[in-house]
Amino acid sequence: MNTVVVIGIGLIGGSLALSLRQQGLATRFVGVEANPENARRALELGLVDRIETDLPAAVAAADLVIVAVPMDAMLAVLPQVLDAATARQVVVDVGSTKGQLLAAVADHPNRGRFVAIHPMAGTEYSGPEAAVQHLFAGKTLVVCDAHRSDPDAVQTVENLFRALPMRLLYLDAADHDLHAAYVSHISHITSFALALTVLEKEKEEQRIFDLASGGFESTVRLAKSSPAMWVPIFRQNRTNVLDVLDEHLRQLQELRRLLADEDYDGLRNSIEQANHIRKIIS
Amino acid sequence: MNTVVVIGIGLIGGSLALSLRQQGLATRFVGVEANPENARRALELGLVDRIETDLPAAVAAADLVIVAVPMDAMLAVLPQVLDAATARQVVVDVGSTKGQLLAAVADHPNRGRFVAIHPMAGTEYSGPEAAVQHLFAGKTLVVCDAHRSDPDAVQTVENLFRALPMRLLYLDAADHDLHAAYVSHISHITSFALALTVLEKEKEEQRIFDLASGGFESTVRLAKSSPAMWVPIFRQNRTNVLDVLDEHLRQLQELRRLLADEDYDGLRNSIEQANHIRKIIS
Repeated sequence: MNTVVVIGIGLIGGSLALSLRQQGLATRFVGVEANPENARRALELGLVDRIETDLPAAVAAADLVIVAVPMDAMLAVLPQVLDAATARQVVVDVGSTKGQLLAAVADHPNRGRFVAIHPMAGTEYSGPEAAVQHLFAGKTLVVCDAHRSDPDAVQTVENLFRALPMRLLYLDAADHDLHAAYVSHISHITSFALALTVLEKEKEEQRIFDLASGGFESTVRLAKSSPAMWVPIFRQNRTNVLDVLDEHLRQLQELRRLLADEDYDGLRNSIEQANHIRKIIS
Repeated sequence: MNTVVVIGIGLIGGSLALSLRQQGLATRFVGVEANPENARRALELGLVDRIETDLPAAVAAADLVIVAVPMDAMLAVLPQVLDAATARQVVVDVGSTKGQLLAAVADHPNRGRFVAIHPMAGTEYSGPEAAVQHLFAGKTLVVCDAHRSDPDAVQTVENLFRALPMRLLYLDAADHDLHAAYVSHISHITSFALALTVLEKEKEEQRIFDLASGGFESTVRLAKSSPAMWVPIFRQNRTNVLDVLDEHLRQLQELRRLLADEDYDGLRNSIEQANHIRKIIS
């Protein structure tokens, strides 16, 4: 692999560039970035070697194109990238939802060059400063609807991402979006709501700061996440997110009922059930 | 300080023993532990030098007594400790709720020897194996109703805990319980509910394991917490927890309404509000 073009040099795009470079998997990194300040910072931080403003020219020079823009921009940018792609390029998105995106490019003549992937890793920060080198090592890469991509394109993606190293998991787009709602999107909703709760109830911010311990920070840290990234995700995965959110509201209301009724045996049983998460999350 | 007696050698009691010893703040550590297996492990792990089974004898030999049992046991054990205390001892609890406990000992003849404290630190683990040395360094210690304690007892506690080092914050019991509901107890409720949601929706545990990233683990890790510790906390702080939980349910329902109505500007505004937590939690 010679030249990787990263479109959108933020947390995920920037971290992928750093990781691929560090593993020696590509030699030249070119950035395409709509925000001039982010483009300047990405260069300064060495995430990419140069910035290209002409999208078709950037794609033409690429071996691999990584599209790492928010999901609303993704719906516009990915078709433009595929328009410019030839049999020489492999194109990946790194988006958090897949259904709408894959439907949008289903009939594109270059659909085969595109491999839909979702690296299951991130932080609550965004932009080029948020890029870190070891974000993906040991994590899962979901590959969606791989049968819709050319076998050589899938092979290229498998080789690159296994070398980071990541574990590959193959799902269809509908399954991906459902599971992503459970294990990622709902955590962000609850964290936003928890931050709003505490900010509403605790008018003295200094008091929160003084008292907040690791447990609170842990549950609320995702509430720092960017609306520019998350609103389009919730929008594109709305049905699944609403479904999981309704189940979460039911669970919270049941815990509330047990406490309101002073049913402490019931509360203990529910917490013991919740403790089963220990078997899954080490 | 010569001899510290720790009653209940779990996460908090054990970690305090380790921290006080490491800072050279006391030389002998005696444990009182109702669970024989935990007593054996606490000795093996070097959390305490010996186990004493007779509570009054343990207190008589102590300079400082740390009562670190779950809040239901605390209501029974603290009065027994104060019964055995003299003007020579300082007694602290490390409980997560204060109102009911302080009311229970308000008229005890040795009330002055007791200083109510709450170190704002912990993990989702429990028992002697969970004890770690640096749990408290840099964290806040809440001292409750300090005016009800003898000045020399407060001074002793201030000197010891500032040396760990911890920041001291003085609150009355009612304020403590209200703030603790906001910045600690609600986080546990939401995490238990989130674990129950995912366990209910995701019947394939392997899939959760494969897909769960740092964000999910962060919001759900408190769901590993012990019901033996948390049911008595929720019980003793029931009114505050219900109040904060109702606000949290309102916030979640409002986010749900915005998404159901496809009011994406409203959703963006709410997330921007939630982002204000950045000012408080670094």
